[in-house]
Amino acid sequence: MFDPQTYSQRRQKLAESVGGGVVLLLGHSHSPMNYADNYYPFRQDSTFLYYIGLDQPDLAAVIDTDSGRTTVFGHPPTVDDVIWSGPQRSLNQLAQLTGADLAAPIRSLQRSLDRAKKQVRPVHFFRPCRAATGNWLTALLGPDAEGGVSGELIAAIVAQRLIKEPQEVAEIESALEVTARMHIDAMRLAAPGIVEGVIAGHVESLAIAHGARLAYPCIFTRHGEVLHNHSYHHKLKAGDLVVHDSGASSRRHYASDITRTIPVSGPFNERQRTVYHAVLTALEGAMEQIRPGIRYRDIHLDAARSITCSLQQAGLMKGDLEESVAEGAHGLFFPHGLGHMMGLDVHDMENLGEDRVGYDTDTQRVNQFGLRSLRLGKFLESGHVLTVEPGCYFIEALIDQWQQQKRHERFINYAEVRRWCGLGGVRIEENVVVTPDGHRILGPPIPRSVEDVECACQTELN
Amino acid sequence: MFDPQTYSQRRQKLAESVGGGVVLLLGHSHSPMNYADNYYPFRQDSTFLYYIGLDQPDLAAVIDTDSGRTTVFGHPPTVDDVIWSGPQRSLNQLAQLTGADLAAPIRSLQRSLDRAKKQVRPVHFFRPCRAATGNWLTALLGPDAEGGVSGELIAAIVAQRLIKEPQEVAEIESALEVTARMHIDAMRLAAPGIVEGVIAGHVESLAIAHGARLAYPCIFTRHGEVLHNHSYHHKLKAGDLVVHDSGASSRRHYASDITRTIPVSGPFNERQRTVYHAVLTALEGAMEQIRPGIRYRDIHLDAARSITCSLQQAGLMKGDLEESVAEGAHGLFFPHGLGHMMGLDVHDMENLGEDRVGYDTDTQRVNQFGLRSLRLGKFLESGHVLTVEPGCYFIEALIDQWQQQKRHERFINYAEVRRWCGLGGVRIEENVVVTPDGHRILGPPIPRSVEDVECACQTELN
Repeated sequence: MFDPQTYSQRRQKLAESVGGGVVLLLGHSHSPMNYADNYYPFRQDSTFLYYIGLDQPDLAAVIDTDSGRTTVFGHPPTVDDVIWSGPQRSLNQLAQLTGADLAAPIRSLQRSLDRAKKQVRPVHFFRPCRAATGNWLTALLGPDAEGGVSGELIAAIVAQRLIKEPQEVAEIESALEVTARMHIDAMRLAAPGIVEGVIAGHVESLAIAHGARLAYPCIFTRHGEVLHNHSYHHKLKAGDLVVHDSGASSRRHYASDITRTIPVSGPFNERQRTVYHAVLTALEGAMEQIRPGIRYRDIHLDAARSITCSLQQAGLMKGDLEESVAEGAHGLFFPHGLGHMMGLDVHDMENLGEDRVGYDTDTQRVNQFGLRSLRLGKFLESGHVLTVEPGCYFIEALIDQWQQQKRHERFINYAEVRRWCGLGGVRIEENVVVTPDGHRILGPPIPRSVEDVECACQTELN
Repeated sequence: MFDPQTYSQRRQKLAESVGGGVVLLLGHSHSPMNYADNYYPFRQDSTFLYYIGLDQPDLAAVIDTDSGRTTVFGHPPTVDDVIWSGPQRSLNQLAQLTGADLAAPIRSLQRSLDRAKKQVRPVHFFRPCRAATGNWLTALLGPDAEGGVSGELIAAIVAQRLIKEPQEVAEIESALEVTARMHIDAMRLAAPGIVEGVIAGHVESLAIAHGARLAYPCIFTRHGEVLHNHSYHHKLKAGDLVVHDSGASSRRHYASDITRTIPVSGPFNERQRTVYHAVLTALEGAMEQIRPGIRYRDIHLDAARSITCSLQQAGLMKGDLEESVAEGAHGLFFPHGLGHMMGLDVHDMENLGEDRVGYDTDTQRVNQFGLRSLRLGKFLESGHVLTVEPGCYFIEALIDQWQQQKRHERFINYAEVRRWCGLGGVRIEENVVVTPDGHRILGPPIPRSVEDVECACQTELN
């Protein structure tokens, strides 16, 4: 946790933005794997973490925005809890840690909400992402909870959480210290004959050793063209290209999110180098432009332009560059967005609504293939933390579909594209904070240039 | 998966036991960590795995026990699924893998159930452990789903799953191959100055490398007296005793569950050796008795007798042995049960009801402290797979409570017990299958004797 003042101040700001009524924040319970007592590693709700910070299951908090008082609700610990789970903090101790005014047993939460409703004061809440928490909300608020969600509350939370405090950026950088080691180790371990899972397992062990977890399931695959590939059963072969997308959480649960593409045998072959260079050029061109006041969708489109230009040089694409980008022909190779906001969640606040985070009235989501997957389109501001992650893939199912539909034939050399199938995919990803006069790449450097990656891949892990 | 016949035969047997109506089996969906698309590693519902075997989210199956036909329901894959998640099997291919007769899109499941209800045929179901699946059940069956659960169905499932097929025992032994390496590596890695999480992370990496996961969260702690301790932040010190309780899943998701207690500096000190020897003697005495027709509660009580006897010799307990055990004085040191059933779940079928699995009309659960935590009390049968896991702990909060209440003063030397506080805890656990004429300890041997453990702890991992 941060110090109690951090949470008090965040709640005070929230109370001012929401303006009247009470805010109900529900924490997560344990999430069962196969039966109630065999649960996944606990992950608190991110908004609860942001405003309350207490990292244990079955808590709730009510912020009275009129009086400014916060009450933490929980189960008073029993001797049985101590026997099974070790020394427990009292509810008052928990309240002190977050700078709350009151602590109360969870059974009094219902009474507290009923009182607010009786006084005809609004109860602000949002729909939780977990069904168990959703059922709890419904039990507390009745049918109100089903449809109604407080738009003011979500807008206030999003506005506040999007601008990172310096201590939050420091947390993300602490996660990146671990993530750098994960990626450098993976480059050194990757070799013909090794099963992907051995390296994926090692990567996860480093996050656990650091006292945290991965921020999202690791991608480590010779089939990088499958964008969300979470299987690790292939044996690596000479000449393979591996997409490795993984990031540790910090101890306070801030995410990091880094991708590198690894040539298994050490040097890239010629086609691999061509594609790698195309993606790297797009990445570096995109990062250079990051500053307050620029629209991220424009940077995305510029990255698309950069990749299209490189693919034209390689004979994979053709025709007028601007028309090609405007019509979205590059979507065949780069079907996802350039990046997304990052913070306590790797896709920050995605549970509050992707469009509420990445778009606004000035910038609305566009429905073109590729562009519709762009999670962040709006103008950047100082304090935003985001990912930059261009990619280029050879996805046979998509190539089949487009070629059959004769889609973008003016811009794509399908015959040549076929020859490159089997290459897999390349993605390179960095995490960046927007500063008042530009940007800063977060975390320690991780090999990224062709030469540095090849060198790291030819070094063995000792 | 096993071959299609396995699943057909299992379903046929189930249909015969249930006798009439349709059986509804719901598979699990992904379980979100912090937002819907950032989910935990997928774990299928175990009963669904047992009868259907398909290991992917958002499936359902209906077994018509009258016609004997099984229908698998799922989402027909789209090109988008292929782009994001790789090559997909068609619903017909899924049905073939499990030997089902029909495949149908999930939207027709509601119609199928409505038809059965209209025909006044019983729909057999059980309450899922996950809230999301529970909500799905309620949406499908309406208010019926809330209270009603099919007692016949649960009894039939429990009776069938409790007797392991040879191929299931082989799966558990394949998990134990990995688990053995996890425990031997941990003994070699444990050394003063190492943070617990480094070893816990390594243990988890071995399970991932094997293409599976841990069957339950790893316990690796110098505070073994906290029975379910899932934190790994302590630095190991010379003289520490570490409880290490972890088990890999097999690729088909069968569990293993092994505990060893590790002297960090290599040799046990005198008190540690005394307690270790007490637990080891209880374990070996208990395993020797395992055979069909013996009540597991009697073996538990015999283990309690063995531990009490050892603690009397050490001066920690006193008084009449039989009276002491009958009154449950040993519960201060051994507050949990001797073991539980194991299979697809590490506590097999706990989500169907612990008492339906471990007790029956011949053996009812006893409410004495210690004994009430015994998950398995009933008569053993050939084909049962279970854990044997006696332990002995010095839990200060419990000692404080009992001493204040002057509980069992006739049997406990509280003054001497105080002197041993800080030792932590010892648990040793093996997995055993009941055979027609006795039992067999499953998996490869893992150092267990005082000498073997000390030797493994003094070997470094190369």
